[in-house]
Amino acid sequence: MNTLIPMLGQPAVQTPLLKLLPEKFQKTVFIADDERVLFDIRAANVRRMIAEGKEIPSFEQAGPRRSIFFEPSQTSAAIVTCGGLCPGINNVIRSVVMTLTYRYGVKRILGVRNGYQGFIPEYACEPIALTPDMVDHVHRQGGTMLGTSRGKQDPERIVDFLLNNKIDLLFIIGGDGTQRGALVISEAARKRGAKVSIIGIPKTVDNDIAFIDRSFGFATASSVACQVIATAHTEAKSSPNGIGLVKLMGRHSGFITCLAALAVSEANFVLIPEVPFSLNGGSGFLNALKERMLRRGHAVVLVAEGAGQDLIPAKSQEHDASGNIKFQDIGIFLKDRINEFFKKEKIEINLKYIDPSYIIRAIPANQIDSVYCYMLGEYAVHAAMSGRTEMVVGLVNNAFVHIPMAMIAAGRKRVEPHGPLWLSVIEATGQPPEML
Amino acid sequence: MNTLIPMLGQPAVQTPLLKLLPEKFQKTVFIADDERVLFDIRAANVRRMIAEGKEIPSFEQAGPRRSIFFEPSQTSAAIVTCGGLCPGINNVIRSVVMTLTYRYGVKRILGVRNGYQGFIPEYACEPIALTPDMVDHVHRQGGTMLGTSRGKQDPERIVDFLLNNKIDLLFIIGGDGTQRGALVISEAARKRGAKVSIIGIPKTVDNDIAFIDRSFGFATASSVACQVIATAHTEAKSSPNGIGLVKLMGRHSGFITCLAALAVSEANFVLIPEVPFSLNGGSGFLNALKERMLRRGHAVVLVAEGAGQDLIPAKSQEHDASGNIKFQDIGIFLKDRINEFFKKEKIEINLKYIDPSYIIRAIPANQIDSVYCYMLGEYAVHAAMSGRTEMVVGLVNNAFVHIPMAMIAAGRKRVEPHGPLWLSVIEATGQPPEML
Amino acid sequence: MNTLIPMLGQPAVQTPLLKLLPEKFQKTVFIADDERVLFDIRAANVRRMIAEGKEIPSFEQAGPRRSIFFEPSQTSAAIVTCGGLCPGINNVIRSVVMTLTYRYGVKRILGVRNGYQGFIPEYACEPIALTPDMVDHVHRQGGTMLGTSRGKQDPERIVDFLLNNKIDLLFIIGGDGTQRGALVISEAARKRGAKVSIIGIPKTVDNDIAFIDRSFGFATASSVACQVIATAHTEAKSSPNGIGLVKLMGRHSGFITCLAALAVSEANFVLIPEVPFSLNGGSGFLNALKERMLRRGHAVVLVAEGAGQDLIPAKSQEHDASGNIKFQDIGIFLKDRINEFFKKEKIEINLKYIDPSYIIRAIPANQIDSVYCYMLGEYAVHAAMSGRTEMVVGLVNNAFVHIPMAMIAAGRKRVEPHGPLWLSVIEATGQPPEML
Amino acid sequence: MNTLIPMLGQPAVQTPLLKLLPEKFQKTVFIADDERVLFDIRAANVRRMIAEGKEIPSFEQAGPRRSIFFEPSQTSAAIVTCGGLCPGINNVIRSVVMTLTYRYGVKRILGVRNGYQGFIPEYACEPIALTPDMVDHVHRQGGTMLGTSRGKQDPERIVDFLLNNKIDLLFIIGGDGTQRGALVISEAARKRGAKVSIIGIPKTVDNDIAFIDRSFGFATASSVACQVIATAHTEAKSSPNGIGLVKLMGRHSGFITCLAALAVSEANFVLIPEVPFSLNGGSGFLNALKERMLRRGHAVVLVAEGAGQDLIPAKSQEHDASGNIKFQDIGIFLKDRINEFFKKEKIEINLKYIDPSYIIRAIPANQIDSVYCYMLGEYAVHAAMSGRTEMVVGLVNNAFVHIPMAMIAAGRKRVEPHGPLWLSVIEATGQPPEML
Repeated sequence: MNTLIPMLGQPAVQTPLLKLLPEKFQKTVFIADDERVLFDIRAANVRRMIAEGKEIPSFEQAGPRRSIFFEPSQTSAAIVTCGGLCPGINNVIRSVVMTLTYRYGVKRILGVRNGYQGFIPEYACEPIALTPDMVDHVHRQGGTMLGTSRGKQDPERIVDFLLNNKIDLLFIIGGDGTQRGALVISEAARKRGAKVSIIGIPKTVDNDIAFIDRSFGFATASSVACQVIATAHTEAKSSPNGIGLVKLMGRHSGFITCLAALAVSEANFVLIPEVPFSLNGGSGFLNALKERMLRRGHAVVLVAEGAGQDLIPAKSQEHDASGNIKFQDIGIFLKDRINEFFKKEKIEINLKYIDPSYIIRAIPANQIDSVYCYMLGEYAVHAAMSGRTEMVVGLVNNAFVHIPMAMIAAGRKRVEPHGPLWLSVIEATGQPPEML
Repeated sequence: MNTLIPMLGQPAVQTPLLKLLPEKFQKTVFIADDERVLFDIRAANVRRMIAEGKEIPSFEQAGPRRSIFFEPSQTSAAIVTCGGLCPGINNVIRSVVMTLTYRYGVKRILGVRNGYQGFIPEYACEPIALTPDMVDHVHRQGGTMLGTSRGKQDPERIVDFLLNNKIDLLFIIGGDGTQRGALVISEAARKRGAKVSIIGIPKTVDNDIAFIDRSFGFATASSVACQVIATAHTEAKSSPNGIGLVKLMGRHSGFITCLAALAVSEANFVLIPEVPFSLNGGSGFLNALKERMLRRGHAVVLVAEGAGQDLIPAKSQEHDASGNIKFQDIGIFLKDRINEFFKKEKIEINLKYIDPSYIIRAIPANQIDSVYCYMLGEYAVHAAMSGRTEMVVGLVNNAFVHIPMAMIAAGRKRVEPHGPLWLSVIEATGQPPEML
Repeated sequence: MNTLIPMLGQPAVQTPLLKLLPEKFQKTVFIADDERVLFDIRAANVRRMIAEGKEIPSFEQAGPRRSIFFEPSQTSAAIVTCGGLCPGINNVIRSVVMTLTYRYGVKRILGVRNGYQGFIPEYACEPIALTPDMVDHVHRQGGTMLGTSRGKQDPERIVDFLLNNKIDLLFIIGGDGTQRGALVISEAARKRGAKVSIIGIPKTVDNDIAFIDRSFGFATASSVACQVIATAHTEAKSSPNGIGLVKLMGRHSGFITCLAALAVSEANFVLIPEVPFSLNGGSGFLNALKERMLRRGHAVVLVAEGAGQDLIPAKSQEHDASGNIKFQDIGIFLKDRINEFFKKEKIEINLKYIDPSYIIRAIPANQIDSVYCYMLGEYAVHAAMSGRTEMVVGLVNNAFVHIPMAMIAAGRKRVEPHGPLWLSVIEATGQPPEML
Repeated sequence: MNTLIPMLGQPAVQTPLLKLLPEKFQKTVFIADDERVLFDIRAANVRRMIAEGKEIPSFEQAGPRRSIFFEPSQTSAAIVTCGGLCPGINNVIRSVVMTLTYRYGVKRILGVRNGYQGFIPEYACEPIALTPDMVDHVHRQGGTMLGTSRGKQDPERIVDFLLNNKIDLLFIIGGDGTQRGALVISEAARKRGAKVSIIGIPKTVDNDIAFIDRSFGFATASSVACQVIATAHTEAKSSPNGIGLVKLMGRHSGFITCLAALAVSEANFVLIPEVPFSLNGGSGFLNALKERMLRRGHAVVLVAEGAGQDLIPAKSQEHDASGNIKFQDIGIFLKDRINEFFKKEKIEINLKYIDPSYIIRAIPANQIDSVYCYMLGEYAVHAAMSGRTEMVVGLVNNAFVHIPMAMIAAGRKRVEPHGPLWLSVIEATGQPPEML
């Protein structure tokens, strides 16, 4: 696990913060370049690794540096947002613009529009010049003020854009696929001798970015998920044999679903991609649901969109513009299977299916995500100005750190199928530990 | 238009309010039996009708009477809730229980469970005894604490229940179908000599109850609809050629859709059952949408679930348990048509379809609906205790009145296709006045 | 009661709506000049008045006219907002601008800043030109985008402004004091031969504008009041002998306090300006509170800011900039009296005092207020373009009408101390009908 | 820094989880007794300490143990809540009850009422028996279902209660003062030979508990604080020279104030207890405020309740029931000073003072706090059942750990006056780094 961050060159410019700040701050706020944060913080592991002479895995600590690489007055930055929406994107944009402007004095900041498309002239989407005034209230709105799109674009042409526009810093807000794309862009830029700092701010509403404590926007999205579950619970309890079935976001991971279940304590079944289940058979989901219905007369079922894909009869595998496999709709599938099953069992049920879809992601960030986004933006700018590149900023063990982009791009975090989170979910729902 | 309310007999019992209240109130709060509220309040019409010797249409004014029909100490009441959920049902239940108990001293109140099913022994759903303590906090929750179901039950067996349980007052919370059922029950009761006051509190989340200013829960539901539209707007603006398509409740009427459009001013097209439209053709919806997309690059489309049913290829007509025709899903249909159309036009769009379904109806009532429900419950009890029957309480011209149940059961209110509300919607959206 | 609206002259211009609208709308949306809405809609009163040959009180119906007075292409409008904040002011501004622009084609609209101060050059606050783009999202924010101030300014100098800027239409959003000021301005303008249509949109967060069903923003403000009361209730129930004391807006009337009490059903005492009460004595408030505390161990007390002013020892009467008498703080006064009283009674209590003050009025309008504001703005523009003046638009008996400004300026609405609203409050709280 | 947790004895009972759980879980969910989490996770520090042969500071990892000390079927537990309210208390109570019942099979759980008073017979407040059904929906409400009070009670009499009621596990939800009290109780119990596990769940709405990442309820409370600040901002911008002054909770620390300022980015001055400031003088707060007003015409000022206490003329030092020094009201004080200052400067301002007080703490926990509380409750029960005592559960470096109660009782966390959080606040507000 190599966690070293590539540098564009030796930082030799005195940071403007040195002049702006009262002296007392200068002793406490600058981070030395060798300050690192441990990744595995279990004491026994650390002692063992040291005893064995192994390197303890750690990440470089984020924060402002005394010496920076770019001369602010001659620096140009660009920001681009890619992939699906997530609460807080505008907060990050705002924070990057504010920090570049007020902390460093960078004057030229371009907002690239509609994701990677905005780099390509054919899409006819000129970048916009971003100023503090323009972004001042943008965090009050959901979505991204820059627009977004899915999918890759030709890296050479993106480098053309960067060179033509003399971009020194490129901030890329996007998921693991976007960060993979960013690496390719960076490589192409390096080959052509461009000194561009490419810094990612990892984004996913599903909270499945590897290594980091949680991704921005997740707290907001799961709050809305909780409100939706409450309506499913109300519907289920208001009808004889009522079943509330809710599909939630989560293509590869069940974090939103699990944490919403723990927060509201009203779900009786949680189905996630990480934990396989059967529909039929004595210990399958449908029998477990029947048992619950006979016992209590109502049930709430949460299903993550990526759950149970193996149960749905195969179609030709379709892909979306980002290259992701298109998922079959497990929500509709389950709704039909549940209705069929109870019809055959001659039990009249009232199933209400709720698919909140974009409702949970297209809203402004709440307070905790707003603060998180504000800080991510600050730390991304500090990293970029210092000459670092091919890295993302993130929160690891409650500390802000630099993570190599390649590590984020390599894979996602998942709910551990026999770990404590899933155990808490089983306890909170009362569902059988295995439905196979 | 006969607006006279049937009476079970002559009110001859002095109301307990006479003793409970300070004298000053007694002069101002009791309503005389001949106090009526005009329905058509346009001065010219009223003058013309009087000049022509015609009866001016009016409704009996709601409120407490000095003399009542039922001796409270010997009175038993029952409450039942039928049909789909709507914000505020629990508030009405609570208000009825509180008013019966504290204003009149009625001690025996049964909560019939799961709609009309609760009257029928086979469903094995015993009624519950309701007390002020039981209902004290119930308005904090959405749904109905009594449960609900759709569909009719044998009126004779319902009368069996009323007689066996010595029910004097029956409060029925439900829509126009439920009120039609209530009339049949009342008739059956009358034939068997039962003196039961049957009072309806009309319920529909769609706001299409005839005659009344607005139905309870509507303000809450359209608030949530507005929040959902905001997310569709955010999605539409965040993608190149983004379209946010939202399906909202409204089987026969577009009130939720229209009023949400006026409130948020972010919708560009509103499609409702009352106003027919074509998909294709030069002045059809799809061309109008294309024109908007070319001009502004994004659009928000709201469609009420009952809109454009004529456009969907016919299936065998299915009915739900309430006997309503099952609607084809106009949301999914439109989504597919829009995607097809722009594909053929070679314009890449990003359509996000949102169907909030039960999310907007399964929530607690907001402040304005809570007060409305509180008052509906009070007035329903006053009417019942006075010996009235086969009527509903409602707000007409901002005054609480008694409306014969038969008038409510006869038909629904609709958005006038060339009236001022629809004109405001056309102006607010900028959509063509006709898309045919 | 003279409800006739002054006209600036004969409407002789064909409204542009005639050309814009499909023919079918033209038959249904225009209001004839003699269409009026009855004010007293009780059937017996109407019949009696007609029999006695009396004029039935009525208001002119609001809405678009076929003929208007101002030629839109040569018309200039101004908008000003005065007095305290209220949810929905920005919605009204937005609606006026949108309707002037899109329905009539008026191109020049000035936003006068900071209330009546904005007319006076010394305040150095230039008006801003308002366009649809500028106001498009302003309803998402509370407050007023134009700024506001209290107090009068020299009417002659305001007329100077109107003449210098060739203003034809002046829209004034403000309370009863503001409307009194508007009358004086109108008179001064008339004397100098200026044909200015002066149209008010009455504003008060206290809901005490005379004649109208409810004032805009009130539904929003009382929703927030309800949330605050819930926290007082939580505090009261979480401590031994907990008392939650909440001061709410309402200088002259208790509408917010009463309707919040009915909505949440958690208040045990409601004190309003219209209903006098004693602190001490056997049947006074403090003894009633003690009785409640001994019986239930907690209590929630709501007090409107204008309540019980007679109980507070006199100070020299101070006035604020609007000329209103400055109220002594009944909340702090009650808090001290309650603490003293229970100390003397040797009962340990935990009183939590909450004064939400501006929190309930400085927020965006909710859905129901948004629609109301949208329509008020539309109707205000229709009235102004038709050449009407010295009037306000309002909802009376659920119909939009024109009300002479002088009637609004003459006095406020109050909670009837022995009427049905107060009776409902007494019943909902369980407080003694009289505490004297 | 001794972070070892006292044990009541050797855990020798096989945990029921061993039987309940599928085998796969057993390998992953149990925590070995020597698993510890590093406190200082900076790599250089860790390496240095190891090189120097020093103990690396670490906390015991929280979680279920294979062997426990108490035989569940014979175990009795009690829960008590002390001090001021905080969002999430009911969630913790609920989680403790659920985990004791369903994970361990403990059947007797007492809820001690009204804080430490509930242990003392004179207060006549019998404990209540808690069951899963009783607590099932309690997390939907703010406050504490058990009641709370401030202040100490005689530890011997509390031990009397524990012995008389045969309590084995005592869960104490409260702040640092409460945890100091808990230590005294534990010592008294030990002296009398009672084997009682005393486990704290630290509570403070101010987020100033030492060592832990954040305290429960803080995310919810600062969300509400943000909403209040938005209204202050609206008021400030709506008046000429408008100033919104908001007092927020925070007796000893400015965390709520700082994080709300970062989240909403609308505050221009933040005043906290940790950072002294002057009112007068060229670089004092009032001049800085004047400079801002002249430049921008409005300002939002946030002040934590414990800020600037040195500026307020001394009164005799009063203490509240918890023994805390009573703070003078800095909000009212500042309001008066600001008004005076600008009057003297002959600048007319419109200051709106908002004190949300209990509004921000008496509300239900939001999603992120709900999950946190759920887990704190689980981990508290695991710790108690294992025979640990005199400890609290908390989140340190994003891991749940056991912290000795004495460490929590020893002091509070504060905002570092020259650290990165305060620097971010200065940058976000634009206020001078020093106002002295």
